[in-house]
Amino acid sequence: MTAASAREPFDAVDVIRRVRDARPVPHDELRWMIDAFTRGYVSDAQMAAFAMAVLLNGLGREEIRVLTDAMIASGERMSFAGLGKRTVDKHSTGGVGDKITLPLAPLVASFGVAVPQLSGRGLGHTGGTLDKLESIPGWRAALSNDELHAQLRDVGAVVCAAGSGLAPADKKLYALRDVTGTVEAIPLIASSIMSKKIAEGTDALVLDVKVGSGAFMTDIASARELAATMVALGADSGVATTALLTDMETPLGRTIGNANEVREAVEVLAGGGPADVVELTVALARDMLALAGQPDVDVEAALADGRAMDTWRAMIRAQGGDPEAALPAPRESHTVFADRDGVLESMDALAFGVAAWRLGAGRARAEDAVIHAAGIDLHVTRGARVRAGDPVFTLSTDEDERFGRALEALDGAWIIGDDGDAAAPRPLVLDRITA
Amino acid sequence: MTAASAREPFDAVDVIRRVRDARPVPHDELRWMIDAFTRGYVSDAQMAAFAMAVLLNGLGREEIRVLTDAMIASGERMSFAGLGKRTVDKHSTGGVGDKITLPLAPLVASFGVAVPQLSGRGLGHTGGTLDKLESIPGWRAALSNDELHAQLRDVGAVVCAAGSGLAPADKKLYALRDVTGTVEAIPLIASSIMSKKIAEGTDALVLDVKVGSGAFMTDIASARELAATMVALGADSGVATTALLTDMETPLGRTIGNANEVREAVEVLAGGGPADVVELTVALARDMLALAGQPDVDVEAALADGRAMDTWRAMIRAQGGDPEAALPAPRESHTVFADRDGVLESMDALAFGVAAWRLGAGRARAEDAVIHAAGIDLHVTRGARVRAGDPVFTLSTDEDERFGRALEALDGAWIIGDDGDAAAPRPLVLDRITA
Repeated sequence: MTAASAREPFDAVDVIRRVRDARPVPHDELRWMIDAFTRGYVSDAQMAAFAMAVLLNGLGREEIRVLTDAMIASGERMSFAGLGKRTVDKHSTGGVGDKITLPLAPLVASFGVAVPQLSGRGLGHTGGTLDKLESIPGWRAALSNDELHAQLRDVGAVVCAAGSGLAPADKKLYALRDVTGTVEAIPLIASSIMSKKIAEGTDALVLDVKVGSGAFMTDIASARELAATMVALGADSGVATTALLTDMETPLGRTIGNANEVREAVEVLAGGGPADVVELTVALARDMLALAGQPDVDVEAALADGRAMDTWRAMIRAQGGDPEAALPAPRESHTVFADRDGVLESMDALAFGVAAWRLGAGRARAEDAVIHAAGIDLHVTRGARVRAGDPVFTLSTDEDERFGRALEALDGAWIIGDDGDAAAPRPLVLDRITA
Repeated sequence: MTAASAREPFDAVDVIRRVRDARPVPHDELRWMIDAFTRGYVSDAQMAAFAMAVLLNGLGREEIRVLTDAMIASGERMSFAGLGKRTVDKHSTGGVGDKITLPLAPLVASFGVAVPQLSGRGLGHTGGTLDKLESIPGWRAALSNDELHAQLRDVGAVVCAAGSGLAPADKKLYALRDVTGTVEAIPLIASSIMSKKIAEGTDALVLDVKVGSGAFMTDIASARELAATMVALGADSGVATTALLTDMETPLGRTIGNANEVREAVEVLAGGGPADVVELTVALARDMLALAGQPDVDVEAALADGRAMDTWRAMIRAQGGDPEAALPAPRESHTVFADRDGVLESMDALAFGVAAWRLGAGRARAEDAVIHAAGIDLHVTRGARVRAGDPVFTLSTDEDERFGRALEALDGAWIIGDDGDAAAPRPLVLDRITA
């Protein structure tokens, strides 16, 4: 019963009330809401109330599709149609120690597939792929469209900054969600991720949906719902999409930070590296290659024989980086030792992510710089036997005063106990969702 | 895990997340949230997300008390301690045709009690008491504190505009709720109403909580929850509070508007008027007088013998009005007639409220002016027998082009049927809630 403006066909309050009361929202009103928000007619306050109502009451499947289409329609659409290669992209919902894109993109590209990884920077306790790569001297994240296409053609793998032209409505909405406690809304996460990937123009997409303390989704039911929603959105838009649900209770690999994560990625590309990082890289590569029409290739061989490493080097060089250069070393380090014999029963991903963030590996505000040498190296991981006096992990940063708050975050976040059972191996890949 | 500012002890996102996840909010964080919002540190978007989370998840009884106290603490507190009279106030949650304050304040004051009715203007489909009184030539709503006290002492009854110094946090929050679909949150309605009444300094308070299509609360369970919440808040702050739940499915009395509602109020003060208006006026007066220490007085006698009318005239004159002056008459009228014989089975309060609003009796934006002669006169009310050709209601306004949209709102909103049972009398006072 509220009055719409003379020039606007709908009223934001009507749309908000419908979601609030868990009633269906007409598709034209939903499309208008996103468009009017992008134009600034619908206020941040109205969109924040809408986002909270969506978080608490959800949206229907068709409404999520309309929302995603409206996000895409707010900006430009790219196309890789002229490349003459299949394109396949990977997206992770974000985890602690998640450097998988670094070995994965060149690995998949080494099979002749184009991998356009348009990535973001870290905000909060999960790191950003661009921040990690920027610890390589000379490497630059910003590419023109022509450079992006040329590198996809010549090298196959690109990790670069997403242009601001893709789904600007999502960019505006995401910034708002970040300060209004509405990040965790499944329909908004799904439409945010998928609008950018669909607008980017990839042929296929593999999603790594993290589950656990260090992830957006802390329970598997929510993660499964998010994954199924995104897979369906991909299918609706003609992007072949598969999702893996993967464990994020404990950090991935043995490094959390920027330069140290690059070092670990290079170990994997050299045929080594921690077992969990290798396992996830290979699992995602298999699904990406299957979607690109190569279901039966020997992925591990490309890590073992140096093909993936060659593509990595070419990818880094193409963006101005020196793959042989020394990475930044930290000015200050602080190692924590075991105070008893036992088994490392747990290592909480969220706490280690927050600690690395406080050491300077991540940023609190978008305009902050990161410390590339800051982070955490894990000397043992979950399930390992330790003896009193063994080093457990080492914190690094350039600013001594950061250790105190980082150690606070880690208080109680790792447990050495007697119980080998409590630390029994858990599967890394929890489930796989296909269209 | 979010970072609080160097100068602020808490983070709005933490507070929002707690309400969102239905976890308790520490009282100091809740107090800070309201204070920081008043200062502009917490943004409108953050407060809108908070309000939506409160609407959908509720707040605990103690949290509502803390919220109310924080609203009170945002502004000044008044006191009527020096008056030498008991003060008792009435608040209605808003209904269609609700002119009860007009006869009620002078009626109660005629027993020697001080009735300080600090009122607002109408926004949306429920009218505003000040708008109604401003149809009396010369009458002014704005009084200084000294004028208010003098009139309470000399006349006893005052209906005037609430100063902006009372609960400014609530004023800011209410404006935000109005545009974000969060008006209907029971904890926010309760704290909004009670913070102003407690800050005003009244000794006692009677609440008229409306239930039905024309009210904020459309079901009795919500209305009862709201009433119980407000009665408890009053008791916590030493304001003796009683609430009546009253029917708002159908308009109150036979007039909806401004000048026509004043006319009807004067009929009641002259010992006449519609039965429902008289019944509710008397019921509220009894409770107000009981709280003021006069439980056994003959309320009806004061209407019958002119004492209430004398106080009304004195009250209007004290604020510059001429109680004998002619009220504004409309330039245009349009009468709707019955198209069949039967019984008026229903007359929907919301639709008639919206129609009166569209005729110009109310305003869409706070800065709009109202048309004092605009409104609706009901020739028959629910339960009446009508014959084809009988006038059912008359719409009035100064602007001919308003009839179309007003009639649209009334389409299907009143039903003449055969079924006398469907129109059987319903109680007006549905329940009574005391501390």
